[in-house]
Amino acid sequence: MRILLTNDDGVHAEGLAALERIAAVLSDDVWVVAPFSEQSAQGRALTLTTPIRVRRLGERRFAVLGTPTDCVMLAAELVDGAKPDLVLSGVNRGQNLAEDVTMSGTVAGAIQGMAMGIPSIALSQSLEDFHSGAAQYETAEAFAPSIIRTLLKAGWPREVVINLNFPDRPPAQVVAVEVTSQGVRDVQHGLRTERRTDLRGDDYYWMGFLDRAEDASPGADLRAIREGRISVTPLHVDLTHRPTVHELRKVLGGAPPKR
Amino acid sequence: MRILLTNDDGVHAEGLAALERIAAVLSDDVWVVAPFSEQSAQGRALTLTTPIRVRRLGERRFAVLGTPTDCVMLAAELVDGAKPDLVLSGVNRGQNLAEDVTMSGTVAGAIQGMAMGIPSIALSQSLEDFHSGAAQYETAEAFAPSIIRTLLKAGWPREVVINLNFPDRPPAQVVAVEVTSQGVRDVQHGLRTERRTDLRGDDYYWMGFLDRAEDASPGADLRAIREGRISVTPLHVDLTHRPTVHELRKVLGGAPPKR
Repeated sequence: MRILLTNDDGVHAEGLAALERIAAVLSDDVWVVAPFSEQSAQGRALTLTTPIRVRRLGERRFAVLGTPTDCVMLAAELVDGAKPDLVLSGVNRGQNLAEDVTMSGTVAGAIQGMAMGIPSIALSQSLEDFHSGAAQYETAEAFAPSIIRTLLKAGWPREVVINLNFPDRPPAQVVAVEVTSQGVRDVQHGLRTERRTDLRGDDYYWMGFLDRAEDASPGADLRAIREGRISVTPLHVDLTHRPTVHELRKVLGGAPPKR
Repeated sequence: MRILLTNDDGVHAEGLAALERIAAVLSDDVWVVAPFSEQSAQGRALTLTTPIRVRRLGERRFAVLGTPTDCVMLAAELVDGAKPDLVLSGVNRGQNLAEDVTMSGTVAGAIQGMAMGIPSIALSQSLEDFHSGAAQYETAEAFAPSIIRTLLKAGWPREVVINLNFPDRPPAQVVAVEVTSQGVRDVQHGLRTERRTDLRGDDYYWMGFLDRAEDASPGADLRAIREGRISVTPLHVDLTHRPTVHELRKVLGGAPPKR
């Protein structure tokens, strides 16, 4: 089984080393195509307007001056011979839950693999205090190989990508695995921008998030992680909101409106 | 009604001028917060690792060195007094259909408005030959105000964003309005990367798309645009693939697997 690894924290990230150890349990044909530097919150960004540089760091190891989506797209060029049988993206430093999955470079790397017809899994190690530094990658490492094997054996639809999150606990304190739905955060009240002034007197802004109110209802990814369970969420990229298609058809449709 | 305009083609784009004319039909309280330069394919990218510069170009007009998502987030700081009642993002030069909506900066700007609790609409003027240059913005201009009024009157759920696409035809040849679902393209076979060598002898890559096989089944956004109809697609960002949640619960869940 040929496995392609990517991430969004960059080729030198600790979480990628953890992912390489996970992949080594599953196969000895493992390739790495990862960004040079941190690409957090790059979502599905794709580099179209500038050329992309690639550096070969080893026989099966490349660094790309681009996004995780770029990495997976370029892997088709960079990986010798057969295309990968599995794309693993991560292990991200910090969880990718709720609507953050739409901004996550880690999830985007897996979505790109799925778009190219390859079974793809995003892995994230959650971190309750993001500033404290140490993510407990040993938790992802302890459980990921077995979960990935179970998933590959069961299979999943080709339009679906798997989003795995591991709780911020040592392996012995992980209580369960749960197949979850994407949760909801109150982004509206969690937004934070701050204006500062530089040494030349010009303004600039930083953006960030406050602690956000969470809808951690039972079955949600947020709830599973908060309560020490491993969260497994199948995602797809058909964003159609079908109930609203039905509702809007009552008021729109047919001949174009008068101008 | 206070309207915030943004886009992903940049503050000087022709499509933004078209959007300003559309907004002027609806309100005289219109604000523009748009990127300095083209942000196509930036998806939901958010600028977290570098400071963001803002330039005030007019009383109600700002250019942001950042992504469409940055623009809408910063608008909360930049727009005096009450927050907007409506976010309009576009008019994009080129369609945003099928899974391209997950990469589109135009749709991302609207998603960010929705995330902040504001009814939000993305507008795109399709363009059959992207290299030919001229998008027929007069088509978006002719029909958008009436469609937006109908949508605002009917309302839609707060977790939903509206994706409007106008066909590449003059207004008189637009045959209908259709409420659609997001279509599917065959991305796997449409990917294209090309390696070139620069004048110093170093390699670089470009990425792009070939013409892609399309599933333009009836009811899909792709089909509506191809056949000259205006496409109205309600989107949301809950990516959960519910049938697979159900299936995976048969094989995963309960106590964590043995290590």
